Amino acid sequence: MEVKLMRNILDSNDEIAAFNRETFAACGVVVMNLMGSPGSGKTTLLEKTLARLVDKIKIAVIEGDLFTAKDAERIERLGVDVIQINTAGGCHLDAAMIQKACTSLDLDVISLLIVENVGNLVCPAEFDIGENFKAVVLSITEGDDKPLKYPLIFKESEVVLLNKVDLLPFTNFNLQSAREDLTTLHPTIKIFETSCTKGTGLDDWAAWLLGKAAH
Amino acid sequence: MEVKLMRNILDSNDEIAAFNRETFAACGVVVMNLMGSPGSGKTTLLEKTLARLVDKIKIAVIEGDLFTAKDAERIERLGVDVIQINTAGGCHLDAAMIQKACTSLDLDVISLLIVENVGNLVCPAEFDIGENFKAVVLSITEGDDKPLKYPLIFKESEVVLLNKVDLLPFTNFNLQSAREDLTTLHPTIKIFETSCTKGTGLDDWAAWLLGKAAH
Repeated sequence: MEVKLMRNILDSNDEIAAFNRETFAACGVVVMNLMGSPGSGKTTLLEKTLARLVDKIKIAVIEGDLFTAKDAERIERLGVDVIQINTAGGCHLDAAMIQKACTSLDLDVISLLIVENVGNLVCPAEFDIGENFKAVVLSITEGDDKPLKYPLIFKESEVVLLNKVDLLPFTNFNLQSAREDLTTLHPTIKIFETSCTKGTGLDDWAAWLLGKAAH
Repeated sequence: MEVKLMRNILDSNDEIAAFNRETFAACGVVVMNLMGSPGSGKTTLLEKTLARLVDKIKIAVIEGDLFTAKDAERIERLGVDVIQINTAGGCHLDAAMIQKACTSLDLDVISLLIVENVGNLVCPAEFDIGENFKAVVLSITEGDDKPLKYPLIFKESEVVLLNKVDLLPFTNFNLQSAREDLTTLHPTIKIFETSCTKGTGLDDWAAWLLGKAAH
């Protein structure tokens, strides 16, 4: 019974996600689903990314959060259109939430839509929202064992940002081991090493993202 | 339909949790449900805690993980009885999983049972497993905005460990602001500042936990 209902929920989500995907394609919008643990640095990374891209292409952001609008307020300050979704305690965004949020966006003029998911390394990976690709932020301070412990999100993501590399000297994180585990799980995964404090890797990442949005 | 079923799942979980709680009380076992984000440092903290308590009281550990036994292997090296629960991708432990795991433990000889939940700041807080109290680990590198962004887990937890305080000089984490938010959410919450790298606060924390287990 529980399993059957879970399947119904996922089937229904997949149908709405497919509808979202068709809508985005028709409007020429590329959609990135940005995921990662609480505190991995998603919002700060997003701020730094937007600062590099906002003059080049039209970007909008959907911010997923349990209750607050703290992240959306940070993005709005950059002059980017942002829609806040509050999940009221829910642990992930789903396709219907994205569909509803998009009614407040002018998709025809947007080239890149970035969806910052709820901070969670488990549930968001299970729900297709109609994105073109998923990205996952893993911060150095979380430990190099996380790819093998939370494999689905790294298998599902086209790109991983190893973030907060400025803290490498103060942790026992083994970059080589993390890279090996990531490519074992997902041989074609693209890996960036970034630090929003020092600016490391952000230009390369933004250029890559711009390339994705241009296709 | 979905809401109704979710209520059924939670009702059923609460019944099993109540049964677990009665069983633990009858056997004189104090149970701590240890929660926190992926990479907040739960397992390392547990290792340091066990090292301080293992000669004083009989402790057992239940390790929740999505797929691997990496954490259980770390605990086993300390000579502590440990049961691994793999949730096969599930984002939290529930009362039935704990009930089943306990059939492999001799509860009559155990004084303290520590359950390390799946790394997740959302879902584990929603599921009673029959514990006496919940504890949450929040690492400095996750940011001081997390209590207000993920309020339930901090409202539910009797104690919070602000972990990795050795990294305070390298982050913009505001300890005072975090403490204020925590006590606003939960006025009686007990707060420890800990660092497993430097050993900060671990003796106080272990002494507090020993006091809980003695009651």
